[in-house]
Amino acid sequence: MISRIAILGTGLLGTSVGLALRAAGYEGSIVGWNRSPERGKVALKMGAIDSITADAMEAARASQLTLLAVPIYATLDFMEKLAPVLGPDHLITDVGSTKRVIAEAATRLYNTPERAAFLPGHPMAGKERGGAALADAALFRGAVWLFTDDPACQRSAHSAALMKDWREWVVAMGSKTIDLDPVRHDELVAWVSHLPQFVATALSALLEEEVGDAPDLKDVGGRALREMTRLGASPYSMWRDIAYTNTEAVQAALLALEQRIAHLRENLRTPELRDEFVQANKFRRE
Amino acid sequence: MISRIAILGTGLLGTSVGLALRAAGYEGSIVGWNRSPERGKVALKMGAIDSITADAMEAARASQLTLLAVPIYATLDFMEKLAPVLGPDHLITDVGSTKRVIAEAATRLYNTPERAAFLPGHPMAGKERGGAALADAALFRGAVWLFTDDPACQRSAHSAALMKDWREWVVAMGSKTIDLDPVRHDELVAWVSHLPQFVATALSALLEEEVGDAPDLKDVGGRALREMTRLGASPYSMWRDIAYTNTEAVQAALLALEQRIAHLRENLRTPELRDEFVQANKFRRE
Repeated sequence: MISRIAILGTGLLGTSVGLALRAAGYEGSIVGWNRSPERGKVALKMGAIDSITADAMEAARASQLTLLAVPIYATLDFMEKLAPVLGPDHLITDVGSTKRVIAEAATRLYNTPERAAFLPGHPMAGKERGGAALADAALFRGAVWLFTDDPACQRSAHSAALMKDWREWVVAMGSKTIDLDPVRHDELVAWVSHLPQFVATALSALLEEEVGDAPDLKDVGGRALREMTRLGASPYSMWRDIAYTNTEAVQAALLALEQRIAHLRENLRTPELRDEFVQANKFRRE
Repeated sequence: MISRIAILGTGLLGTSVGLALRAAGYEGSIVGWNRSPERGKVALKMGAIDSITADAMEAARASQLTLLAVPIYATLDFMEKLAPVLGPDHLITDVGSTKRVIAEAATRLYNTPERAAFLPGHPMAGKERGGAALADAALFRGAVWLFTDDPACQRSAHSAALMKDWREWVVAMGSKTIDLDPVRHDELVAWVSHLPQFVATALSALLEEEVGDAPDLKDVGGRALREMTRLGASPYSMWRDIAYTNTEAVQAALLALEQRIAHLRENLRTPELRDEFVQANKFRRE
């Protein structure tokens, strides 16, 4: 049913979606737009998009599905601009890492029978470095793709059908879909995604200060250290919007971890240390 | 030169050394001892050792090189027991994760011209789960193998030659050797090895409490979460001795990280967050 797609933002995620759709057998058109047209050419060369445009509005208007694959505030900006120019024959979806502010904007601007539909989405896949050059048709294979749709909203039958079709493409790209309330989504990802990232950033920044001037000693940590600091390479440009739009949940998770580390530090020589290891082992039970 | 080796402790590291020596072309004998003889048979079956004995003392006496591959307090215990029965024709080395207490015992009990030589060693390689069944001939390939020898000690020419030979086998197993002062060693590994482990333990224990009852939600975190909690599977039995023998350095590193996380938490919406990401990116620069 969907045969004309616009991908706005051809970074790692947008380009990977284009490649994954092709790998899953999608034969319709895919037009791409990118803030930097020069970098958009990488997605074109890789075959993730068929054409590239400088006019994101027109590309969205001419498509049935528009995928917003830009940072969160840029997504909100597109949502404002696209709402007046798209109608009930159109579906927009996104890949933003927090969903409360986006779901609020979706309810405010979309999702009535007269307006375009907006399906807030969040593929739990990525890499510590962005950019189309690292895009991968297999990025979503085995991943979870979260949706935070509002089941109460009344859409046109047409946009409901587009939505069903897009969910099927997501499954065809290899993901497992889970539906969550947007507030619950943001709380959950604060624990399982944002907390690990900010801890890796703090750990990497601290270690750069402590051992950064001795490159041979960085090798000493081996695989364990490399894994625990891999996310230290993540760009501020992406995480700033997450920190801004999920501040309270992230603060609560970080504070809980600080307390947990302090507890462990105070119990390095008591039986409490065993309890912490046993509890941690449980999280990693097979 | 070394043609008779005893490996005391055929867990992950002891068994991997046996396999790696064979892979590197070692053609002498290797006798193994294990606290649980039943598990020692795994190492025998894998070809890491030629024979298994119940008498660790006798196995050491009959060898030129004894490798202690047991937890730190068990290593100290063996050092006490072996010192009176071995002589200057013998070299002992170990794989313990902290080196200050072991280097002190080595100076007290070994390393005179009349006594056996003891070379404190620490291969920076391992897995989050122990046991001979996970042993790997390639475990030390590309890894750093630390030594904390005291250059001032006077050894017999024979044991000095054994030591040179063992260092060559370590290189033949694929490792890069680095020599460090034992106190500096313990401070360094507190940052690059013990800190990542204890943080992964605290993070895993916390997440088990928060999302452990919802297995489908654990999948949501994807690769990043798996990596950041992989070390959560590490056994208390090994880390207890490390916590006991490097308490102050680990406490200092954990406290520094708590403060760093708190700083990040207080600055989720200020430009300081950018500085933390930039500093973390530096640690992971290619």
